[in-house]
Amino acid sequence: MSNISVDEIESMRKSVTIVPMKTTTTYLTMHTPQRRAFVHLTSQVQEAVRKSGVQEGICLVNAMHITASVYINDDESGLLRDYDVWLEKLAPHEPVAQYRHNGAEDNADAHMKRQLMGREVVCAVTKGKLDFGPWEQIFYGEFDGRRKKRVLIKIIGE
Amino acid sequence: MSNISVDEIESMRKSVTIVPMKTTTTYLTMHTPQRRAFVHLTSQVQEAVRKSGVQEGICLVNAMHITASVYINDDESGLLRDYDVWLEKLAPHEPVAQYRHNGAEDNADAHMKRQLMGREVVCAVTKGKLDFGPWEQIFYGEFDGRRKKRVLIKIIGE
Amino acid sequence: MSNISVDEIESMRKSVTIVPMKTTTTYLTMHTPQRRAFVHLTSQVQEAVRKSGVQEGICLVNAMHITASVYINDDESGLLRDYDVWLEKLAPHEPVAQYRHNGAEDNADAHMKRQLMGREVVCAVTKGKLDFGPWEQIFYGEFDGRRKKRVLIKIIGE
Repeated sequence: MSNISVDEIESMRKSVTIVPMKTTTTYLTMHTPQRRAFVHLTSQVQEAVRKSGVQEGICLVNAMHITASVYINDDESGLLRDYDVWLEKLAPHEPVAQYRHNGAEDNADAHMKRQLMGREVVCAVTKGKLDFGPWEQIFYGEFDGRRKKRVLIKIIGE
Repeated sequence: MSNISVDEIESMRKSVTIVPMKTTTTYLTMHTPQRRAFVHLTSQVQEAVRKSGVQEGICLVNAMHITASVYINDDESGLLRDYDVWLEKLAPHEPVAQYRHNGAEDNADAHMKRQLMGREVVCAVTKGKLDFGPWEQIFYGEFDGRRKKRVLIKIIGE
Repeated sequence: MSNISVDEIESMRKSVTIVPMKTTTTYLTMHTPQRRAFVHLTSQVQEAVRKSGVQEGICLVNAMHITASVYINDDESGLLRDYDVWLEKLAPHEPVAQYRHNGAEDNADAHMKRQLMGREVVCAVTKGKLDFGPWEQIFYGEFDGRRKKRVLIKIIGE
């Protein structure tokens, strides 16, 4: 017969209420008509967090292509224009022949722009929401568009 | 009556010793008197890790403002000065009129400097401590200070 | 005697099948004969993911030294050459006296190149594998080599 004690049952009762870890994976599809573009993603990421049911954890958002970025900064049209000019200055598209990567392709500069803006962001999830400062917004930065690309959202927590 | 077997009790005894996932959230307040400054954060982050009780996991540290960075590099005054000069070269503050974002504000360059240095770091926690190489130190990089900002530390693990 | 009910046993039976969180830590050693070099790491990281047994989670890969990067981009020799030229343009090694950090050392530029390419990548693990787009490859970027350095792989998930 069972030799389980009352205390042990109490202890197990408490232990088994452990909230299990949750993970969810979401893919977004991007397709910008221009070579370079910025797409605001915050609401789509927040929606993925809500659907995941995760209350406390972290949320990874990354470009799945190597000529695009996911980054966090301001949703302000002047700044987006400034970023575009600045990135073109630090990693110019022309002349395309300056890059060995170019030949069949002409997108070497996009591989550099993506490094400057980063591949991914990792965000805290607190009380079921993106734990953001007042101006933080998630953006997709496209540097070689006019074709389909994907963004991955991975949420892990409890 | 209960139909639990001795084997099952043994199995449950083992299972319920699962260490549950832990998460903790800590906010630091920054307020630098200068427009640009570097603040060493390693000991505050290490203290948050210790308090969390997490032995194995990861630790996210991010600026909650979009004109500031959290990054990992050397705690050496010459290098901090070099970073300041270098960032000013790649994303100059003056002339402020070169940026469309400026007008009511004059901090467009700070939004660029922050992208170069990054928003966040993700650190491994191993045996209850930041799992760092010999020279790794966490810094807050302020590029538009003279006001209150926050840094978030999220720790997730077991 | 035990006052556990049949329903409670059923409920506990279900609860205790919770898959526990797993974490694993792996260290790679790097030693490039050149000052600057790129080393392809994808297969070693994928192997660490396989060994961890994690099916769903995230994988942090970071340089443990502050003159090296871990980043994700293309495995294409022309691009690697372009990155080298471009990084040298944005953060030139010579003249070494332009940097205050230099003196006993001559690697200030390496601390800047590392910031441009980043310290770490955080990757999603889905169905037991790195959840990557078609061209994503993990690289170690060395900017002050000719000595032993380490890369850390931390995997967390279930």
